[in-house]
Amino acid sequence: MAHTGFIGLGIMGTPMALHLQKAGHYLYTNRFINQPAKALTDGGLKVLDNPKAVAEAADIIFLMLPDTPDVEAVLFGEGGLVEGLSPGKLVVDMSSIAPIETRQFAEKVRAAGCDYLDAPVSGGEVGARNATLTIMVGGNEASFERVRPMFELMGKNVTLVGDVGDGQVTKVANQIIVGLTIEAVSEALVFASKAGADPGRVREALMGGFASSKILEVHGERMINRTFDPGFRISLHQKDLNLALQGARQLGVALPNTAATQSLFSACAANGDSDLDHSALVTALERMANHPVA
Amino acid sequence: MAHTGFIGLGIMGTPMALHLQKAGHYLYTNRFINQPAKALTDGGLKVLDNPKAVAEAADIIFLMLPDTPDVEAVLFGEGGLVEGLSPGKLVVDMSSIAPIETRQFAEKVRAAGCDYLDAPVSGGEVGARNATLTIMVGGNEASFERVRPMFELMGKNVTLVGDVGDGQVTKVANQIIVGLTIEAVSEALVFASKAGADPGRVREALMGGFASSKILEVHGERMINRTFDPGFRISLHQKDLNLALQGARQLGVALPNTAATQSLFSACAANGDSDLDHSALVTALERMANHPVA
Repeated sequence: MAHTGFIGLGIMGTPMALHLQKAGHYLYTNRFINQPAKALTDGGLKVLDNPKAVAEAADIIFLMLPDTPDVEAVLFGEGGLVEGLSPGKLVVDMSSIAPIETRQFAEKVRAAGCDYLDAPVSGGEVGARNATLTIMVGGNEASFERVRPMFELMGKNVTLVGDVGDGQVTKVANQIIVGLTIEAVSEALVFASKAGADPGRVREALMGGFASSKILEVHGERMINRTFDPGFRISLHQKDLNLALQGARQLGVALPNTAATQSLFSACAANGDSDLDHSALVTALERMANHPVA
Repeated sequence: MAHTGFIGLGIMGTPMALHLQKAGHYLYTNRFINQPAKALTDGGLKVLDNPKAVAEAADIIFLMLPDTPDVEAVLFGEGGLVEGLSPGKLVVDMSSIAPIETRQFAEKVRAAGCDYLDAPVSGGEVGARNATLTIMVGGNEASFERVRPMFELMGKNVTLVGDVGDGQVTKVANQIIVGLTIEAVSEALVFASKAGADPGRVREALMGGFASSKILEVHGERMINRTFDPGFRISLHQKDLNLALQGARQLGVALPNTAATQSLFSACAANGDSDLDHSALVTALERMANHPVA
């Protein structure tokens, strides 16, 4: 079993790291403001001074951090990961961060003789706990094969999409489609309900045909039953659509409905609903129509 | 077998009427500019002078017409259907038209002692030929049960959604979701491709997760393989989103992404692409990004 670093033991990282630990991997992390979960320290997690020390102790180092600047700080800040790297080690960033910056980070890590994979996930806290995450990987095939058994301890739908950065691109594409499909179902149900139809029966009538999707099935039901406990929080989807819109600006791509959908999430945030499930986007359209779906 | 009227024997109506005729129904229609298909006249279709004569000859009269004004003219114009109706007859409008006007039409038909069902379909020419249409019905239960055996000759997913008009509402909701999901997949694939990823591999990676939909499966593949032969034409989807936006204005409902998606369809039309499949919406975003997906 490999000596394994895991930096970022939060809501997602803790259950992911536990799956690795239970399979026999020796885990190292760095000192954070928050204490790591007792289950991890009981299992032998070693807490070192900084990312540099983690890089020295481990062969493969996983990152699971909130956003692009956090990954940059852990990699390249004072006492950062790159200071402790030596040839043959491997950095695996499972955070959801900017694709273009990811390629820059990978280039600098490779300059230290190490390889880099980006491997963002979807599936949320439930997927992390149940080891059912979808993992979208960018990087070279040999490194992917080296980490694949560890990915398979954390997820069940593990794909090498392409070169480094392509995992993050795929995650952004995923969040565009998920956000905009939630918005589409919201427009349809608000329209149908205000036009006098029963939104539950409309949803059922549409489930078999071309309008069918995982979102209509799961989030359509949430909108009708008003079950907006997360799930995946609006604030996190806003972060992801921000990655899409920033990347689109850098690349020169027009994303009109992503921009409009981000505005509707902002309207939810203005109403104090940042911590609701992203299906609560429907409430922004309901307020505009002065009409709740159900 | 019932004496059955069928007004609107075009691309959709002809195969639908043939299914009824083959099951033994005696069909009547009115004189149009175009001759009805030879298969229908060979099968015994009677061509009468006007909709009034069809209403006099038949017990159940189906309409399958292009848009709201066509249905209005057939029902209430000179020599129109209502002039020939007598109590106990049933009008079944399978056209895709405005929900609010549908309720007004139904009220006038009921004043003549007849019942009215709205029963728009999805599934296109292929669904009409193969009798696999999805049929979304609004109206009362007794009339629905009276026509159900005939619906089942034309489609396989037949649902009574609610009162009169609710079939049209459901069809509009369907077209909102389908159009906006095509737009969502388009934004995701243009972004991914311009960011350097392989759009085919991105699509595959997303197929198992929360981004999965019938649209990602079928239309995502069309976008990547550039198979834009219809299918369902952009010009028809524009008509349907117009019903959504007109209805939304009458009802007081904001449909921001439906409005933006309609604009992208208009950009396709400006490029001469009205007769392409609606998945060709992606080309409008590609031109804005100066980058084809594939």
